[in-house]
Amino acid sequence: MDTSPLRLHDYWRSSASFRVRIALNLKGVPYQSVPVDLLSGAQRRPAYRGINPQGLVPALEVAGATIGQSLAIIDWLDHAYPQPPLLPADPLERARAMSSALLIACDIHPINNLRVLRWLKDDLRVGEAERLRWVAHWIDAGLAVLESQTGGGPFLAGDLPGLPDICLVPQLYNARRWDVCLDFYPALLAIEARCLAIPAFAEAHPDRLPDAAIL
Amino acid sequence: MDTSPLRLHDYWRSSASFRVRIALNLKGVPYQSVPVDLLSGAQRRPAYRGINPQGLVPALEVAGATIGQSLAIIDWLDHAYPQPPLLPADPLERARAMSSALLIACDIHPINNLRVLRWLKDDLRVGEAERLRWVAHWIDAGLAVLESQTGGGPFLAGDLPGLPDICLVPQLYNARRWDVCLDFYPALLAIEARCLAIPAFAEAHPDRLPDAAIL
Repeated sequence: MDTSPLRLHDYWRSSASFRVRIALNLKGVPYQSVPVDLLSGAQRRPAYRGINPQGLVPALEVAGATIGQSLAIIDWLDHAYPQPPLLPADPLERARAMSSALLIACDIHPINNLRVLRWLKDDLRVGEAERLRWVAHWIDAGLAVLESQTGGGPFLAGDLPGLPDICLVPQLYNARRWDVCLDFYPALLAIEARCLAIPAFAEAHPDRLPDAAIL
Repeated sequence: MDTSPLRLHDYWRSSASFRVRIALNLKGVPYQSVPVDLLSGAQRRPAYRGINPQGLVPALEVAGATIGQSLAIIDWLDHAYPQPPLLPADPLERARAMSSALLIACDIHPINNLRVLRWLKDDLRVGEAERLRWVAHWIDAGLAVLESQTGGGPFLAGDLPGLPDICLVPQLYNARRWDVCLDFYPALLAIEARCLAIPAFAEAHPDRLPDAAIL
């Protein structure tokens, strides 16, 4: 078996990268973080497109191959390192957990991604106030549903932190970055606090990454 | 075991619903389609929010529970009805297949979703030409990468149609609906043609649904 560490092409403030860092930490898998500076456009340069043709972070290099898309990386990790599992074993509970994760990963995050906000600004000349309202609208639409579905368990899908929590914590970080009011989501904030008390989550936080210090 | 048929809350032209119809057909699982008329806003009414709080289609009612998010539904189906599998067994091939599916499901489809296009039109007053350019931009960004990754196999992830093909075929249907030029994607079009020659895909096609006839 290849024993070289996994290489994560990473950007400290990318919430999709943040998800993968949490998952790697929960699995206890050592990895090397390779920063890709999204603000300077490093993700669009040929050197990086050779690693991930989509030109997005994260991407995980593993056994000579590269996996793009954070949820595909996490699915791979969950198969390669089964403990602790990131999804419930019960089929319906698993489906609900995946649904919560995908609500964030499909219906909130990509619409508010850097490249989309840049298109709004540079191509459609949408002003800052309306861009902020755009971001808040899609975040609120998703978080309101998630808040209504919290079941009183300590985490989104029960007694253990898993895939939906791995998506939630970076999404809340992202929401604060855009000054979105989170007062309507007390149950989600309580889950976030429980997650961030776990080293696997806390150590993956953007503010803990070396790049964070330079801005 | 509950033997009542699965109920799919469905909209003929929704590409996420189209995905689930294909998956149900590939698995040979009978289901009842319950139309939700997105154009009249039925998905936002309390009756439907009681079924799927997110107010989106598709949603699958199964054993007294409802699963939202097309990829969560398909994941549930793939566990409940393992044959034929919708993802490769090899971990890296599985990861690549999931990555292709998520490229469509996260990075193309949600940005061009009905609710986002409505926000562009009604809230940001973005004109039709610019909305069409928006749609084409995100579709092209994703399809160009997928085209470059086709490996000469008959389907996106090898010898059998699976999750990425289930996402591709509806996305191409959606692209044509918005008059996006597909000439640059001959390998994807060849895969689409192979898929649509399979009854499970053909019979799930929007044009085959009863609602299609009334428009």
